[in-house]
Amino acid sequence: MNGGDGASSYARNSSYQRGAIEAAEALLRKEINTRLDITDHSYSSFTIADFGCSSGPNTILAVDIIIQTLRDKFSSSLPNTTTPQFQVYFNDVSHTDFNALFALLPPQRPYFAAGVPGSFYGNLFPKAHLNLAYSSCALCWLSDLPPELTDTSSPAYNRGKIHYTGASAEVSQAYSCQYRKDIKLFLHARAQELAENGLMALIVPGVPDGFLDCQEASTGSEFDLLGSCLMDMAREGRIKEEEVDSFNLPIYYSTPKELEDIIKSNGELKIDKIETLGSMGAQDTMPDLESRVLYLRAALEGVVRTHFGHQILDDLFDRYALKLAHSSFILQPQTHRSIMIFVLLSRCYDI
Amino acid sequence: MNGGDGASSYARNSSYQRGAIEAAEALLRKEINTRLDITDHSYSSFTIADFGCSSGPNTILAVDIIIQTLRDKFSSSLPNTTTPQFQVYFNDVSHTDFNALFALLPPQRPYFAAGVPGSFYGNLFPKAHLNLAYSSCALCWLSDLPPELTDTSSPAYNRGKIHYTGASAEVSQAYSCQYRKDIKLFLHARAQELAENGLMALIVPGVPDGFLDCQEASTGSEFDLLGSCLMDMAREGRIKEEEVDSFNLPIYYSTPKELEDIIKSNGELKIDKIETLGSMGAQDTMPDLESRVLYLRAALEGVVRTHFGHQILDDLFDRYALKLAHSSFILQPQTHRSIMIFVLLSRCYDI
Repeated sequence: MNGGDGASSYARNSSYQRGAIEAAEALLRKEINTRLDITDHSYSSFTIADFGCSSGPNTILAVDIIIQTLRDKFSSSLPNTTTPQFQVYFNDVSHTDFNALFALLPPQRPYFAAGVPGSFYGNLFPKAHLNLAYSSCALCWLSDLPPELTDTSSPAYNRGKIHYTGASAEVSQAYSCQYRKDIKLFLHARAQELAENGLMALIVPGVPDGFLDCQEASTGSEFDLLGSCLMDMAREGRIKEEEVDSFNLPIYYSTPKELEDIIKSNGELKIDKIETLGSMGAQDTMPDLESRVLYLRAALEGVVRTHFGHQILDDLFDRYALKLAHSSFILQPQTHRSIMIFVLLSRCYDI
Repeated sequence: MNGGDGASSYARNSSYQRGAIEAAEALLRKEINTRLDITDHSYSSFTIADFGCSSGPNTILAVDIIIQTLRDKFSSSLPNTTTPQFQVYFNDVSHTDFNALFALLPPQRPYFAAGVPGSFYGNLFPKAHLNLAYSSCALCWLSDLPPELTDTSSPAYNRGKIHYTGASAEVSQAYSCQYRKDIKLFLHARAQELAENGLMALIVPGVPDGFLDCQEASTGSEFDLLGSCLMDMAREGRIKEEEVDSFNLPIYYSTPKELEDIIKSNGELKIDKIETLGSMGAQDTMPDLESRVLYLRAALEGVVRTHFGHQILDDLFDRYALKLAHSSFILQPQTHRSIMIFVLLSRCYDI
């Protein structure tokens, strides 16, 4: 994600992701309220972690909602006990702009804050350290790209495309395998880190069950458009075609069914609740063309820059804006849907 | 402190501060070994915090020494128990370059790492959260400047100087009062945060008992020299004299006696050990003129830039290098001494 607070920063272009938190808010409050068992526990402090928090205001909004819910719960369930102090960990990969995030922390806040750099596909905390784990709009990012996508001898070689949207079944399959591996690593790490009676709430970007590929979802089509802009630039000689062939977006959108299967096959955490948050109308959170372009740029500029260099960025996203203006999902937004999958998990057994 | 890893970064110009850690290493190991009582405690994890860690390699060196000592202690004292997992918190003010610090973390490390932004003169952790607190070369930085230094009607108005070195007794007194207030706040906050049987090791830059002011200490003289360079620039009209009058360095060097008095008057932590680490030979850790200049620039550039703007930086430190080359403490290093005060503290009672 783009750091800082400039025009194309994630901090200023994350209204779509904020929409996900707002859509989940009521469910999140209700599930914490009904499922979290605090009566048997004396907390020295109550620890919360946001995995893949990025460097914008959304994580702070989510933490506010969670802590407000917890404070209400403690004061109503245990009116004669002091509410524990809250320790909040903001996690994301180490090149995340932690300074930009820290600058957004409210000076007066009802929690102690810490930044935790590192991939959430590995362990980031001591065993049984977390009372509440949370992650929103982050588990679609793969830890790495399947190597066969850039192997010219593989049937999953992804020539002329930058994602599995509209690509061959083998490409989709390679992405899906990588996703399964990654989510299993995530679940295994969190199962170690969750305290007894701890909970984990996930908001996972996805596509509805039954989607054959994610072209029907606006995000998939957007990647397809961006890929076609890169191919146009290759045809005009501004970049090399091989550079496009070797570039793939490390993003995967699961169906609820697929995610549920992975969690069940992991077996260390049990699903207390899984619910689709309904059609996320991008047109609601990003009303105009410019905000749609900036949303994608804030999210993808980093991976594009790393592969192609910064010189192509303005040209690429200008072309993208032109194509987007004539695309079906701007002209007919109702035909394209993305969903968010809400999952509440708890530990199955002592680890 | 200067962030990043450029020529004048703290990360590349902190050999003097590393010298302090190296001078304290044997004592730190011995005190942890003999004073930390681990036999009665079952740690879910062992938490360590470095207060005022800055963004260079020194904090990582210190943490390595501490964890090595702890692992040895656990395996020799409790050979049949699993050594707990270590959680390390790196604290400094929120504009510290945390990303530069995170980039220095060894990928394979025997601890979980988190960055904690905020002033250590307030609470940064839940109660009883820390098993070992540590701070090196940081407690000389005041939380703020005493307002009377810039009050033209006050006897502590510090005209034409940027520090109490060589200034009036009232100026020294104002600095000393602020230091006392700050250290009390620090001790009070840590007393809350230290776990029962927790320890705190401090390495505090200071001057020997009996120093009337810190002109005999090289750092004090260096500030004096830097102040005279600013006054030269004011005389030449490059900056305004009032800008120099309103600029003061928020740094104070305590004597061991003064620090001991403050700790005793606080009363929440008791001194298990206080020892002067002996004459810190700056000439050993910074053998040439350039390294002396860069050391000061890495430490002070931030406060100078905030007050005067970045335009004056090169000119100022060039002038400083010229004056330093002819100064008594480069020509006669043996006459100038700085010390480090090592203090080991533990909680007096249940809080």
